[in-house]
Amino acid sequence: MLRQKFYQEKMILIAIFLSSTLLAQTNHKPYSEIAYSEIAQQITRTALAEGQAYRLLAELTALGPRLSGSPQAAAAVEWSRQTMLKLGLDNVHLQEVLVPHWVRGPIEEAAIINSATMGTVPLTVCALGGSIATSEMGVVAEVVEVKSFEELRTLGKKAEGKIIFFNRPMDASKLNTFEAYGGAVNQRGSGAIEAAKVGGVAALVRSMTTRLDDQPHTGGMGYQDGVPKVPAAAVSTVDANLLSQIVLQEKSVRVRLKLTCQTLPEAPSANVLGEIIGSEKPEEIIVVGGHLDSWDKGTGAHDDGAGCVQSIEVLRLLKALNLKPKRTIRAVMFINEENGLRGGIEYARRAAESNAKHIVAIEADRGGFAPRGFSVETDSARFARLASWEYLFKEMGAAHIFRGGSGADISVLVQQGVPGIGLVPEAQRYFDFHHSDNDVLDGVNERELNLGAAAMAILCYVLAQEGL
Amino acid sequence: MLRQKFYQEKMILIAIFLSSTLLAQTNHKPYSEIAYSEIAQQITRTALAEGQAYRLLAELTALGPRLSGSPQAAAAVEWSRQTMLKLGLDNVHLQEVLVPHWVRGPIEEAAIINSATMGTVPLTVCALGGSIATSEMGVVAEVVEVKSFEELRTLGKKAEGKIIFFNRPMDASKLNTFEAYGGAVNQRGSGAIEAAKVGGVAALVRSMTTRLDDQPHTGGMGYQDGVPKVPAAAVSTVDANLLSQIVLQEKSVRVRLKLTCQTLPEAPSANVLGEIIGSEKPEEIIVVGGHLDSWDKGTGAHDDGAGCVQSIEVLRLLKALNLKPKRTIRAVMFINEENGLRGGIEYARRAAESNAKHIVAIEADRGGFAPRGFSVETDSARFARLASWEYLFKEMGAAHIFRGGSGADISVLVQQGVPGIGLVPEAQRYFDFHHSDNDVLDGVNERELNLGAAAMAILCYVLAQEGL
Repeated sequence: MLRQKFYQEKMILIAIFLSSTLLAQTNHKPYSEIAYSEIAQQITRTALAEGQAYRLLAELTALGPRLSGSPQAAAAVEWSRQTMLKLGLDNVHLQEVLVPHWVRGPIEEAAIINSATMGTVPLTVCALGGSIATSEMGVVAEVVEVKSFEELRTLGKKAEGKIIFFNRPMDASKLNTFEAYGGAVNQRGSGAIEAAKVGGVAALVRSMTTRLDDQPHTGGMGYQDGVPKVPAAAVSTVDANLLSQIVLQEKSVRVRLKLTCQTLPEAPSANVLGEIIGSEKPEEIIVVGGHLDSWDKGTGAHDDGAGCVQSIEVLRLLKALNLKPKRTIRAVMFINEENGLRGGIEYARRAAESNAKHIVAIEADRGGFAPRGFSVETDSARFARLASWEYLFKEMGAAHIFRGGSGADISVLVQQGVPGIGLVPEAQRYFDFHHSDNDVLDGVNERELNLGAAAMAILCYVLAQEGL
Repeated sequence: MLRQKFYQEKMILIAIFLSSTLLAQTNHKPYSEIAYSEIAQQITRTALAEGQAYRLLAELTALGPRLSGSPQAAAAVEWSRQTMLKLGLDNVHLQEVLVPHWVRGPIEEAAIINSATMGTVPLTVCALGGSIATSEMGVVAEVVEVKSFEELRTLGKKAEGKIIFFNRPMDASKLNTFEAYGGAVNQRGSGAIEAAKVGGVAALVRSMTTRLDDQPHTGGMGYQDGVPKVPAAAVSTVDANLLSQIVLQEKSVRVRLKLTCQTLPEAPSANVLGEIIGSEKPEEIIVVGGHLDSWDKGTGAHDDGAGCVQSIEVLRLLKALNLKPKRTIRAVMFINEENGLRGGIEYARRAAESNAKHIVAIEADRGGFAPRGFSVETDSARFARLASWEYLFKEMGAAHIFRGGSGADISVLVQQGVPGIGLVPEAQRYFDFHHSDNDVLDGVNERELNLGAAAMAILCYVLAQEGL
């Protein structure tokens, strides 16, 4: 009896919970708002119940990692084209572009070779994208740990001939994980340059994640004209801590680092485009996209398979619901965001060349998590207009519309004056996956992925009807 | 060079993104609000950077599943007591209470035994909590599939002697997963009663999850005086779909179901309490808690290990930051939420008996995901007061304060007039884990868990200073 009573109570609690949630929706709104509200609910329900984004992501990630120039990236281009055709999109076509072609190579290894207490200690590393290889026998040198470029510069002669170990962690105390990333990623991007400037022979960089794990997280790095190129690798956070401890305790710690990566000649690749042509103003274009390439660790499920399949799903949802946009909505799978941005640059170049009228560009490239809002780059009037549609995203908890960066692939369009919008999902988990073997389908939740697609579909539809 | 430029652009985007986020914080607020804002930020930063909730959850889940009456539940009681003592909490003690003691038994299996097309087809099942065993040889009977109790009642004689297969899915189209759960869970809670009423010999219930997986999800079920008891089991959603298909295609599908579960005599157990005694009004109590027991599938990491360790973490955080609450904040690990609610009932009974002055009770029992807000049961004046503190939760995205159910463990307190508040996390993933072997530590993200603890710590502190 008690059990029965208990269930009844639970049901009553749930009923109260629900009725309050439902009541919160029935405000007094002008007719057009009610209409959009209903469409938003319809899109959301359809995405949750019959969404195809996860199935598409399963197909896409099954092709393997999609680093620019790789056969898998080519497969992803063809998969995108075929998928868009199967969905009956308009004007499905490729925008061809040359992309950098860097390959990791078969061997990447590192070890402490002379620990007084532990002997030889293998370190879990991977080459950073764009790094040169080491010599065939590897680099062997003493390690110097630094937390910043400033600290490195104060070392003077002490850094010469050394492997520079950049070990400033992402600041876990920051709510915004992208802010924490932004505060640490210069070590990865420019570590090899700074190391070489002081005579260092290699850069070993703490992985960009707030998590303690044994996965190295790769990512782009650069060289600078006039500065010698030295090899650069990421080390897992667990091994970064270990190395740091050993460096602290022992006078002279030597590490051997061996990388076999290389940069091949540029390869042909392409952006993939598909549309729903607008019924009234077909020449006015709303772009929604993600980047099709990924790093070669994991299978780029969150980064950015999620954004790609969500962008395709936006168009599929509108078609499935027979919603006819007045303006053209175009899904773009940008190529080569990770190590060159060639796709985004080429797309913007052609847009400028053809005088295409882009009224807004939307990018999803922060992981396939539950949506929280949109980050907007535009003028005050347009921002106010976008903010006036917040009510459409309240129920799904994605009504945080604020001013901020939109996305790398659309950044060149934005420079040309096109308003840019980035989908902002919950991002506490993002850097657990980012650029590592952890970034596989299993880390993506179907409902969260569907909700992100629904949020973008609602926004695209309203923009297609109302303009900006 | 392009790469360098690309990184610079990314950094600029991130900088714009951040500055806008930071600017959004600096509103003009009265002094007290600024003070609480600063404390809220301090709590959040500390929880994210130095939080102990995940470590505690690792310890708790390592004890194993904590079903009421089990040795593991007893271990969890002692673990809680020792953990609270180690943290230097005040008045650490147990509230003893008898709890139901149901055990799953070594064998639970089911199979279709006469499929014309597939022969014998094993089905992944588990007993529902509280079910009786089948006979030693198992129940063998034809299966009748229904989607509702109404449909079952229309079957009349056709249901007699049958295994009733309740196969109404959770409605995936609903944004609120608890609403979807509420719309399906009567099959689990009362399926055995309804099956027996029409002469059925067992209940087989589709698992309560929106996910297609091969895990049976258990949970409580009840019997009713005067209605025969029949065994009841959950079947995985994958096998529910399979069974449904075979039932649809073939005339007469027979299933064998064998369960060896049993209900043992009630066992001694306890709630575990620990406090920070209020500096000015120690007699006024703020309860923050979760339930210590779990089902015996998985290790109850989200349900409700998360709520337990978050509640302890609330007190640890306040002590670590040397924040002295004016009123007493009491962490309560309630026992036996899952199949009896004995802990919650006993706590409320003693509170009433001793005329304890509870100013509010807060429960965390919806998973250890990123917090989105609080669901409140109280009068309008108090609700308005709580809502006025929304600004403290804006930055972390947990400012959705609304009227709705709070929590099962505190429901009896709420009936006695105590305002009840439930922590509401993002819940799209919750039913992937709920009551199944999926609910283990690995499914919990440390940062999200920490944020939930921070949200409750901020709320507890403000309530301790301001009352309600």
